[in-house]
Amino acid sequence: MSPKKVTIIGSGNWGSAIARIVGSTTKRFPDEFDPEVRMWVFEEIVNGEKLSEVINTRHENVKYLPGKILPTNVVAVTDLVQSCEGSNVLVFVVPHQFVKGICEKLVGKVPADTQAISLIKGLSMEKLGGLKLISEEIKDILKIEVSVLMGANLAPEVANDNFCEATIGCKRKAQDGAFLKKLFHTENFRINVVEDAHTVELCGALKNVVACAAGFTDGLGYGDNTKAAVIRLGLMEMRKFVDVYYSGSNLQTFFESCGIADLITTCYGGRNRKVCEAFVKSGKTLEEVEKELLNGQSAQGPPTAKEVYLMNKKSGKDDQFPVFTAVHLICAGEMKPAQLVDCLRNHPEHL
Amino acid sequence: MSPKKVTIIGSGNWGSAIARIVGSTTKRFPDEFDPEVRMWVFEEIVNGEKLSEVINTRHENVKYLPGKILPTNVVAVTDLVQSCEGSNVLVFVVPHQFVKGICEKLVGKVPADTQAISLIKGLSMEKLGGLKLISEEIKDILKIEVSVLMGANLAPEVANDNFCEATIGCKRKAQDGAFLKKLFHTENFRINVVEDAHTVELCGALKNVVACAAGFTDGLGYGDNTKAAVIRLGLMEMRKFVDVYYSGSNLQTFFESCGIADLITTCYGGRNRKVCEAFVKSGKTLEEVEKELLNGQSAQGPPTAKEVYLMNKKSGKDDQFPVFTAVHLICAGEMKPAQLVDCLRNHPEHL
Repeated sequence: MSPKKVTIIGSGNWGSAIARIVGSTTKRFPDEFDPEVRMWVFEEIVNGEKLSEVINTRHENVKYLPGKILPTNVVAVTDLVQSCEGSNVLVFVVPHQFVKGICEKLVGKVPADTQAISLIKGLSMEKLGGLKLISEEIKDILKIEVSVLMGANLAPEVANDNFCEATIGCKRKAQDGAFLKKLFHTENFRINVVEDAHTVELCGALKNVVACAAGFTDGLGYGDNTKAAVIRLGLMEMRKFVDVYYSGSNLQTFFESCGIADLITTCYGGRNRKVCEAFVKSGKTLEEVEKELLNGQSAQGPPTAKEVYLMNKKSGKDDQFPVFTAVHLICAGEMKPAQLVDCLRNHPEHL
Repeated sequence: MSPKKVTIIGSGNWGSAIARIVGSTTKRFPDEFDPEVRMWVFEEIVNGEKLSEVINTRHENVKYLPGKILPTNVVAVTDLVQSCEGSNVLVFVVPHQFVKGICEKLVGKVPADTQAISLIKGLSMEKLGGLKLISEEIKDILKIEVSVLMGANLAPEVANDNFCEATIGCKRKAQDGAFLKKLFHTENFRINVVEDAHTVELCGALKNVVACAAGFTDGLGYGDNTKAAVIRLGLMEMRKFVDVYYSGSNLQTFFESCGIADLITTCYGGRNRKVCEAFVKSGKTLEEVEKELLNGQSAQGPPTAKEVYLMNKKSGKDDQFPVFTAVHLICAGEMKPAQLVDCLRNHPEHL
């Protein structure tokens, strides 16, 4: 087998952090990987210079990951199709609203046995009230195998080489698990591979909804006990949601980094928590606090909560998910944040 | 069946908080419970008054739970044996070093069908390197059935009626589960009952060890990803520890309040975390920081870590528990805190 060519589709904060990892592993294993890693960069002018040129000469993404050097074998390419030509592994790490457009441009342009791995946390918004995973969206358009990588991975800390873990969900674990692990596993980025990829991916999306609930309790000043109860009940709803809409999940997967670890990080350190706390405390709209706090980034929790709510409503199960339902209703202005706890007193978990 | 008499053995912060709950539930269900709840109080003079008299006249534990009114049906009794006479349910909520002495004084003084429920988080220190649960210590001396109640329950927040959850572990769930739930379940204190009581109790003890590791990462400034990884790996060691030394635990129990919820609360808000963070940052001894930060209370994590270490060492399994082992070695001064992460890189969970 010739060494696999890897392309990173995306060059934001998380994309650049992961490029540092993939750049180092591909260099370390030249038998398995072509050391040249192409990174698709959406061209921008930063301080009068083209971002792609800065990356290719000074090896730094001065806009999205300033101060961190990228390995010299990571090469910025501004043409999407060219960046993926002949590539065997596509690492998707772009905001989820761009996935569809990107995939449509790549139809017919990548080898038939190419595979993808998605690092995108969220749900496809393509058909409201009809659940679609990002991995399914990629697969449906490109007809290729898609794995996912999720975990407790705040990008700045990964870029800082702080020790952490991540989970790869890979349906063909026996066939693909080992090389995917090799591509991402480093001294400070420890990978476990599991087979029920849909659970891994759903954890990555749903924990943002739970983090909104955690943020509400913070905003209401309810303390650690209540917050822990809300996080736990949220986790139970994550489990139930996976069970209801996808059969065959493994309970162990919720114990992986993509499960409880990412949930904890997000409920204490993440942006959804922060936005929802400020929403309660300030009395402003969600849009206003997002604008003030997130520097142009968006919080995935509220749209995911809406998606989940519509899905549950359609199947008549919204009352089985009190945390998820309350988060959507609060975000939509249809319920007061202070009513959150009332919704939890008769949670199905307490019956 | 005549209404059950309940005695609370202990009147500290947590004991007084739980007395508010038990006082209210016994009043609400007079068919099941005798509304007079006796609370054993270790007599002290507070501002020139006897603590027991203050409790019985002003219904406030001015020393350990000032500002919170106790229900008037909670009666302070300073004689231990008298407080338990004819009692059907003994609620143990004292520091664990007093359990043995208390039980020995009660031998032959309580009805044969009395049962106990322990709210004490820790391990018996009676025989070092030989695991003994507090519930087993009570059972061995008094020959009565012992259940446990554990959960994400910081006492001041429970006393403040903040919404939270707790788990009762009760081996004879079919027989005793319902009335025990009735005794503790309120609008803001939501109880789940499970059968593997040993798992519930071990979670309550072992999470303090994990919280020490979390505190070290905080002290070292490692950020949210690393902390989440340490908490997750600690949880996996809690599971393994229960499996190795007690067979037949139910994975679901780790999803209850006694499991992940209590672990989260303790790793973010608890005293073990706080002490261990200060230990790393200040360079002082553990004893010194405990004295400075805990106002005469003690942190259970370090002695529990020692107990767990000796147990694992004896059975040759210490290297299967890298988090637990590192916590003990760091607390004992035999390892530098900065070496913690090195111990985790080759954690059995990553193989």
